[in-house]
Amino acid sequence: MNERGRTRAWRPASFRFRPVGVVRSPFKDPRDIPPPALTPARFFSRVKGEVVVFDEFAPGLDDLEGFSHLIVLFAFHLASGFKLRTVPPGQSRPRGIFSTRSPHRPNPLGLTVVRLLGRRGPVLRVAGLDMIDGTPVLDIKPYTRRDRKSRLASGWQAAKPRPRR
Amino acid sequence: MNERGRTRAWRPASFRFRPVGVVRSPFKDPRDIPPPALTPARFFSRVKGEVVVFDEFAPGLDDLEGFSHLIVLFAFHLASGFKLRTVPPGQSRPRGIFSTRSPHRPNPLGLTVVRLLGRRGPVLRVAGLDMIDGTPVLDIKPYTRRDRKSRLASGWQAAKPRPRR
Repeated sequence: MNERGRTRAWRPASFRFRPVGVVRSPFKDPRDIPPPALTPARFFSRVKGEVVVFDEFAPGLDDLEGFSHLIVLFAFHLASGFKLRTVPPGQSRPRGIFSTRSPHRPNPLGLTVVRLLGRRGPVLRVAGLDMIDGTPVLDIKPYTRRDRKSRLASGWQAAKPRPRR
Repeated sequence: MNERGRTRAWRPASFRFRPVGVVRSPFKDPRDIPPPALTPARFFSRVKGEVVVFDEFAPGLDDLEGFSHLIVLFAFHLASGFKLRTVPPGQSRPRGIFSTRSPHRPNPLGLTVVRLLGRRGPVLRVAGLDMIDGTPVLDIKPYTRRDRKSRLASGWQAAKPRPRR
């Protein structure tokens, strides 16, 4: 792959991440969450809840108030194991896992962009949740203009999915 | 914070993530990378390189070809320790770490949206890199319409930064 086949032999260390907070969501079970790919965006934009940061990290939330959107990185803590290919909801054939947002990934990391409604101390009130209650939050970042891309192509997701309900 | 002060007492387990690949970037040292907040977006959109996935994960890249943009999650592997407040480049006062994209976060997780130029086996050719060469990649996700938000407010980042060079 490169000189001396280094990508094959050399492996960086693994990393341990601890939760900095939890999601408080109206979804109590993964089965409560309709597949985002088959659900109008408006559905999730109405789902409100909280990101509750553990007290010792609360000062890290300062200055977030002026941002309209946040990136929440979380662990798919209920996912067990992973597949390299999976059949997404509404699709008929398997797709490479990195072309999907499936929880069953080599590293069960999730990402959702939420709208920030307000903050009270260690609690962020947000809209746009698609995680279940109790989801461990690993990081929170401001969503910036550099995260907004135009002229998107959406690969297999552009194909019309079969309606589910 | 909620009934029985549960957020204080209860902590979900920590998570171990292993790299699924590495970034090949023209930036060889963190000092080579200008602060994104002070740099025109166009600068980074021209920075090309590769995301090289380890062979055993390569089938997971299938079906990515049709996507114009990818989300790359990575570890800030050179960051040591974290601060809850940091003075961003070009700013005069400290800001809560979660309102910044600083590497010195409680969990040193990084996120960059890149443009996909092409794939050859386990190698993704991409544009828009702002990571250094050798950065461990933890996950790759398709960037979808749900990740594109309109009517952004950018908090303190909207304030005009002092020019750097």
